[in-house]
Amino acid sequence: MVKRADLSHAPCPVARSLDLIGDWWSLLIIRDALEGVCRFTAFQQSLGIARGMLADRLRMLVDHGIFQSVPASDGSAYREYRLTSKGEDLHLVVVALRQWGEAHLYGPEEPRSALVDRQRLEPVAPLTLQAADGRALQWPETRVLKAEPFPSPPPAR
Amino acid sequence: MVKRADLSHAPCPVARSLDLIGDWWSLLIIRDALEGVCRFTAFQQSLGIARGMLADRLRMLVDHGIFQSVPASDGSAYREYRLTSKGEDLHLVVVALRQWGEAHLYGPEEPRSALVDRQRLEPVAPLTLQAADGRALQWPETRVLKAEPFPSPPPAR
Repeated sequence: MVKRADLSHAPCPVARSLDLIGDWWSLLIIRDALEGVCRFTAFQQSLGIARGMLADRLRMLVDHGIFQSVPASDGSAYREYRLTSKGEDLHLVVVALRQWGEAHLYGPEEPRSALVDRQRLEPVAPLTLQAADGRALQWPETRVLKAEPFPSPPPAR
Repeated sequence: MVKRADLSHAPCPVARSLDLIGDWWSLLIIRDALEGVCRFTAFQQSLGIARGMLADRLRMLVDHGIFQSVPASDGSAYREYRLTSKGEDLHLVVVALRQWGEAHLYGPEEPRSALVDRQRLEPVAPLTLQAADGRALQWPETRVLKAEPFPSPPPAR
């Protein structure tokens, strides 16, 4: 892994998230887990990743509460890696990556996987940005307010 | 950069997107650009990234149509890096990362930046997954259909 700045205390939530999951492997492991993969060898086969690198990533993801490692559901000696609710919440990141790729990286007839609603088997709707009151927002209608330190409590009298 | 599998032809749009933008630096550069940064030195100052690495990333992002490099708007000899519409569409990936970080990586009083609607200065709504007909979907209500090759045209008679 390229050595880089530690972003784990950044005031920007984008940076802090990327500090944890900002590499291809972690997000591909999480994508596979969201699609039901739970065994070490299954991740390895799906991703073609070296054993040591997969073990490192899974350990890191367990340490950060994104996966939990549990005994296999079939009673065998294997362990399984299950997404926690914190991990499952990453589905929106994965969906956003998917939809951007669908929109910009495929030719019109190129085969690709599809994310569908189980009930109707139709592709899910594109994610959209909305204001708190439900108005649709374009990106230029938003603004990032920089972090401000919380005001100190009033001095004791 | 760690050498890894080439995902640029993957049938999974998540993988194909990550092939392009799946490293911390690229997404942090794109985050900064979404917040208005456009000059090389401004990216460098904001990110604390080595010049060579920043130049590599910007070149790659220009090559892939995410940025365009244009003469500076003030008429100086500098160049500016502007997101294309393909690049600006990545805002949903950045917002998804932000919202996951906000939900899971901050203590209750820890200062952090906020993404607000310019009109009311209120934080934007959390992204939600919806079916084509507008029903809210939880992740387990969805399914990924694997890529299938397009059916060949019927044989000519």
